[in-house]
Amino acid sequence: MQSQCGGGLLRKELAAPISQACTEIARGRFAEQFVVDIYQGGAGTSTNMNMNEVIANRALLLLGKKPGDYATVDPLGHVNLSQSTNDCYASAVRLATYALNAGLVVVLDELVKSLARKADEYSDIPKLGRTQLQDAVPMTVGAELGAFAATLREDVLRLSELPDMFLEINLGGTAIGSGVGAKPGYRDHIVDAVAAEFNLPVRAADNLYEASWDMGSFVLYSGLLKRLAVKLSKLANDLRLLTSGPRGGFGEVLLPERQAGSSLMPGKINPVIPEALNQVAFRVFGLDTSITFAAEAGQLQLNAFEPLIFLSIHEAVTLLSAAITMFRVNCAEGIQVDAQQCRERLESSAASATEAAQSLGYTEAAKIARIAAANGMNWSEALQNRQS
Amino acid sequence: MQSQCGGGLLRKELAAPISQACTEIARGRFAEQFVVDIYQGGAGTSTNMNMNEVIANRALLLLGKKPGDYATVDPLGHVNLSQSTNDCYASAVRLATYALNAGLVVVLDELVKSLARKADEYSDIPKLGRTQLQDAVPMTVGAELGAFAATLREDVLRLSELPDMFLEINLGGTAIGSGVGAKPGYRDHIVDAVAAEFNLPVRAADNLYEASWDMGSFVLYSGLLKRLAVKLSKLANDLRLLTSGPRGGFGEVLLPERQAGSSLMPGKINPVIPEALNQVAFRVFGLDTSITFAAEAGQLQLNAFEPLIFLSIHEAVTLLSAAITMFRVNCAEGIQVDAQQCRERLESSAASATEAAQSLGYTEAAKIARIAAANGMNWSEALQNRQS
Amino acid sequence: MQSQCGGGLLRKELAAPISQACTEIARGRFAEQFVVDIYQGGAGTSTNMNMNEVIANRALLLLGKKPGDYATVDPLGHVNLSQSTNDCYASAVRLATYALNAGLVVVLDELVKSLARKADEYSDIPKLGRTQLQDAVPMTVGAELGAFAATLREDVLRLSELPDMFLEINLGGTAIGSGVGAKPGYRDHIVDAVAAEFNLPVRAADNLYEASWDMGSFVLYSGLLKRLAVKLSKLANDLRLLTSGPRGGFGEVLLPERQAGSSLMPGKINPVIPEALNQVAFRVFGLDTSITFAAEAGQLQLNAFEPLIFLSIHEAVTLLSAAITMFRVNCAEGIQVDAQQCRERLESSAASATEAAQSLGYTEAAKIARIAAANGMNWSEALQNRQS
Amino acid sequence: MQSQCGGGLLRKELAAPISQACTEIARGRFAEQFVVDIYQGGAGTSTNMNMNEVIANRALLLLGKKPGDYATVDPLGHVNLSQSTNDCYASAVRLATYALNAGLVVVLDELVKSLARKADEYSDIPKLGRTQLQDAVPMTVGAELGAFAATLREDVLRLSELPDMFLEINLGGTAIGSGVGAKPGYRDHIVDAVAAEFNLPVRAADNLYEASWDMGSFVLYSGLLKRLAVKLSKLANDLRLLTSGPRGGFGEVLLPERQAGSSLMPGKINPVIPEALNQVAFRVFGLDTSITFAAEAGQLQLNAFEPLIFLSIHEAVTLLSAAITMFRVNCAEGIQVDAQQCRERLESSAASATEAAQSLGYTEAAKIARIAAANGMNWSEALQNRQS
Repeated sequence: MQSQCGGGLLRKELAAPISQACTEIARGRFAEQFVVDIYQGGAGTSTNMNMNEVIANRALLLLGKKPGDYATVDPLGHVNLSQSTNDCYASAVRLATYALNAGLVVVLDELVKSLARKADEYSDIPKLGRTQLQDAVPMTVGAELGAFAATLREDVLRLSELPDMFLEINLGGTAIGSGVGAKPGYRDHIVDAVAAEFNLPVRAADNLYEASWDMGSFVLYSGLLKRLAVKLSKLANDLRLLTSGPRGGFGEVLLPERQAGSSLMPGKINPVIPEALNQVAFRVFGLDTSITFAAEAGQLQLNAFEPLIFLSIHEAVTLLSAAITMFRVNCAEGIQVDAQQCRERLESSAASATEAAQSLGYTEAAKIARIAAANGMNWSEALQNRQS
Repeated sequence: MQSQCGGGLLRKELAAPISQACTEIARGRFAEQFVVDIYQGGAGTSTNMNMNEVIANRALLLLGKKPGDYATVDPLGHVNLSQSTNDCYASAVRLATYALNAGLVVVLDELVKSLARKADEYSDIPKLGRTQLQDAVPMTVGAELGAFAATLREDVLRLSELPDMFLEINLGGTAIGSGVGAKPGYRDHIVDAVAAEFNLPVRAADNLYEASWDMGSFVLYSGLLKRLAVKLSKLANDLRLLTSGPRGGFGEVLLPERQAGSSLMPGKINPVIPEALNQVAFRVFGLDTSITFAAEAGQLQLNAFEPLIFLSIHEAVTLLSAAITMFRVNCAEGIQVDAQQCRERLESSAASATEAAQSLGYTEAAKIARIAAANGMNWSEALQNRQS
Repeated sequence: MQSQCGGGLLRKELAAPISQACTEIARGRFAEQFVVDIYQGGAGTSTNMNMNEVIANRALLLLGKKPGDYATVDPLGHVNLSQSTNDCYASAVRLATYALNAGLVVVLDELVKSLARKADEYSDIPKLGRTQLQDAVPMTVGAELGAFAATLREDVLRLSELPDMFLEINLGGTAIGSGVGAKPGYRDHIVDAVAAEFNLPVRAADNLYEASWDMGSFVLYSGLLKRLAVKLSKLANDLRLLTSGPRGGFGEVLLPERQAGSSLMPGKINPVIPEALNQVAFRVFGLDTSITFAAEAGQLQLNAFEPLIFLSIHEAVTLLSAAITMFRVNCAEGIQVDAQQCRERLESSAASATEAAQSLGYTEAAKIARIAAANGMNWSEALQNRQS
Repeated sequence: MQSQCGGGLLRKELAAPISQACTEIARGRFAEQFVVDIYQGGAGTSTNMNMNEVIANRALLLLGKKPGDYATVDPLGHVNLSQSTNDCYASAVRLATYALNAGLVVVLDELVKSLARKADEYSDIPKLGRTQLQDAVPMTVGAELGAFAATLREDVLRLSELPDMFLEINLGGTAIGSGVGAKPGYRDHIVDAVAAEFNLPVRAADNLYEASWDMGSFVLYSGLLKRLAVKLSKLANDLRLLTSGPRGGFGEVLLPERQAGSSLMPGKINPVIPEALNQVAFRVFGLDTSITFAAEAGQLQLNAFEPLIFLSIHEAVTLLSAAITMFRVNCAEGIQVDAQQCRERLESSAASATEAAQSLGYTEAAKIARIAAANGMNWSEALQNRQS
């Protein structure tokens, strides 16, 4: 990206090594030279300067000069030419978020497919549906698992659409959106150059002043990540419930065994993978809180707290992506259903009372359901009992 | 809506009074008969039953019968025919949210226009732009105020589009999405009937099982409300900063005087309207926390905590709508700018150094800026001083 | 309290009616005259002025004068004499919080005793202990219920001690802690007068400047309320788990039936009281978020957002108090245990394997536990099977 | 600690190398062998097993055996003897928190002293006190800075007292508090042994069942850390306000210059250290959210999410400690006050009107204050103007 900066104002003999330095860094070299702590003030100035200096010094080496010979390649005058941290860093973190999100969509889609396959696999197994943890009405295992696939599919769609907002950048606005300090001509072509570099429909923000301080896209995206985390945590909770037991719980689902469950209790198998997923969700909820505080604290023409916002977004997306894959590979794909237990639970319950209420009436059906509960009878036993 | 329920299964002589009762309630009658606390378990069962009973008793009166004569009009068998709380309440709160949101969009759009007018009014007044609260570079008052209009305009757009998701309802799914207990034929036409009643593109959820427990639309919408609150709070913060003083602060903006500012300090005028706006934002942040907890706590085929979710959404939208109008009428429309103060602040600062850096170079310009700061000189004085 | 203000500077003929007006208001009269919205700027100035005016007008009536005759009784010059909102409102909300908290301690203590009685009642019933929702090792119902009493007893203690901090007030500090505007002598006796009026060890803050803006005591107290809410929510969650079923869940605990559980499903009984308790907890978590934002937003010599902080504290304490009593009366005191189900669950599980591991060794015991699980045998059956 | 485990049941020839292995690990050796991700299920089982295995293998090496020769030293049978993750890990993280907190208290106390020294240094400089960012009444710089020292001193006290609760541990309770699996005699002496090892008043929890799952101490402690973060963030906000300018802001305080403030704007100095402090505070607020979710999610006899809770506590304390020292050394100790600016701000304002109101009356003083504001006069000029 850096190589495109300057709008013809950078001499070719400097542009080439600066450009090469940028390419090398983008490929992961010199990572050890990025020494600035993420908890930094100034909306990323420290990181931007760190980058400018690493680029300048690498370019100097490529030119056969000594690092630090800033009269030849100046981190500010040449590398940062026409840029400000406030447009350059802000644009970079948006594009980075766009890229990170793309990876999340891929792994989430894999989980959706995996859950959908499980739903198909068990589509015909009847089981007890529960509301408020109470026995309710019949359903199938396929319907239960399919609902998880359906709910996450919605997030695949939202995550595919919404982050388009991160392609709107403020490069060319420099410090506050007015473009002061940028060379004439720079602003006209820089965004197109970035779009070409990444082959993405990157576009300039309509209002560069607003784009210099507004963190709204991160707040909204964090809300979307939080929604995903809510759904994943609910999925983990449900699986832990359904696999509870084996004898003293629901016992309808068997999760793959991943480790000895206890250092004390022999033979105990624990739902450690869903538990890890829960904790990732709880972390994401916390990161959303941090982002809200940081976004609200922006003042006047800049939000100085963008480093924390990006740290939080980066951590949330990275953790969610890793956890989704971990959960898919180590848990979801190995889900097994105890069809016999499902059937026994269903038949011993009064779940059929609701259907019966249509012919018997609600009041009569309720009476039978209570008799069944009080006498330890199945619904069908109680129904027969009444008829006799 | 109630009058459409039943799919031809409700005798006309009952359908008419039930329908009339619903219409009367929708117009605000009998509000005192809704006595159930919002903090209720059961995903709204208490409220749904409260509604069924009020309808039944009103229908009974219309039929010339006594309230409580449930053999004639049964709250469950007739009024709740083919319905479950889990589809009826869930659909009702989604449609109610859609309606509430429409009102929010209207008042927000008015605020956007009001701020845009103010930006036009002061479009040519030069002032100091600030980053990290430090003097930075020149801008205009119009650019500063226009950025507020621009940022909120984005939310008008998002709020106009996103809540379309609330038109997706689960009526016909009954308790868990399977439709058990609903009469044949009911499910096929009920959603269309609702759409016709409200003249809105209401549609059935693709997966009724998922739609029975998923609170994802509320989590996402709450995230959007939170984003709006973040922006409003930042707007309030900035106005309070810009109006700080009158002598010991920024003093660039004058807010309309709304009350004696102090019971002790004579002549003190306080930014009470922005401060109230801040507090509404902080409340909305808290409501989002509650919604996250409630959404995450859903289990298996139902989320029992939907009443709190809807309470929180309702409170957030209502508060935001009222606060936005309060802020527009009592503050935004009366904003005045002290153009002289703006100019003096700008001229006394080193804000022009950035432009100068293009001819002088960063290092030289920085040196002059420091001399100016150390000697209490304007940038232009320091520049002249150097040249002499 | 108001009657003590003035330090001898208020003429007796005014002091008497002002004092009487205050007493009447404290007893609940004229509530309809307090018309100011809680969402107000200015750290409570509007409410304080509302109070001053209601007092003045009532005092005028007592003097046989017309309301509004402020030349005779001036809301500022007489009623607010030596006071500022910033010390008067701030002190009032602290004392109010102290009083609210005392009520919370009483109802929480009653719940502790109620749970302890239940623990005693079922102290000898053996049951399955579970970790990670998996069958673990044996325990008694008494131990399970007793742990709830124990954990809440800790909060009775903390809530009895910590709010002592609210007896530290800043009366006499006026606007910012310097006492400017207060008559000489006022500051020396006003805190003692308040202490005498309430018969409480009220004391002056060490640093009145700090006490004028610091919201730390509310943040800490909100943290304590949140801790209580966490514990209550966990209690509600556990009870809902233990009462899940009746046939398809844990089914060890029976909660008192409070309402028809479903408008659709006959005979269904739902844990609505614990569900309501959960929702109160989720609300308290949200209120803590709001308080954190408001406390952090204070600037320089004042926190303008104290009204929202007090609103949130008031709502949290009031809701928790009501919910605790509702839960105790309508749920906790009616808890019944299905001893047979508890015993069957325990015996069918491998919970005894841990004890056996001490003689058999962990590896051997684990092997038997797995054989039991794979073959649907009880632990004792599998143990016998191996020995044979 | 490990060396004390066993209650005489571990043969001396194994106890010695196990004990030595523990000592070496405690000193930081073998850190690279702790490979388990912190996002783990099972309340720390993975970490506990990791520890048991590292100890066993090191002990084996010390005995001249091969790593993995678990027939000689068994990670479970010998190292974990009489322990469960659920008591061992839970106790370890409490003691670790106690130790971490002690370090926080030290650095916070240093900051308090540093701020108190600054308050003394500028105790006599008069300045303008501000409420709601509006000019209010006179005060001194010493009073302003002294209030920061005072408010943080309260947290030194609270942090010195409250974490005593972490010395209450559940060792001996094993899996759920019943002590099953522990050798007779173990429970009677293990807590005393730990107390002796650390020379701290460590004590056994009253109710070991409750202590096995309750996370209340972490929730309360996190609330205290959040309170500290609120205060630090407010301190950072105030300093950034007071140093705003230099020409277009408050300009009363000069913070030490730490880096070139801008890659674009020459001579700009930014308050990067307070900004970093703000971000640490926002992170701590987020960690508190995560802790609340994790604590609330505990079920029955265990909270499986303790690893996230401890991760969050550890991160919060570590970040706060580092940020406090960074802030003290790089900012607080270098605070300078522009006494002339302070005086000019004060004199140009109407801050003296409040004192004047005592002789002139509120209404008359307010009138003069407004005339001053409207005509750009100082209070004293306006007062003279009126008298003439």
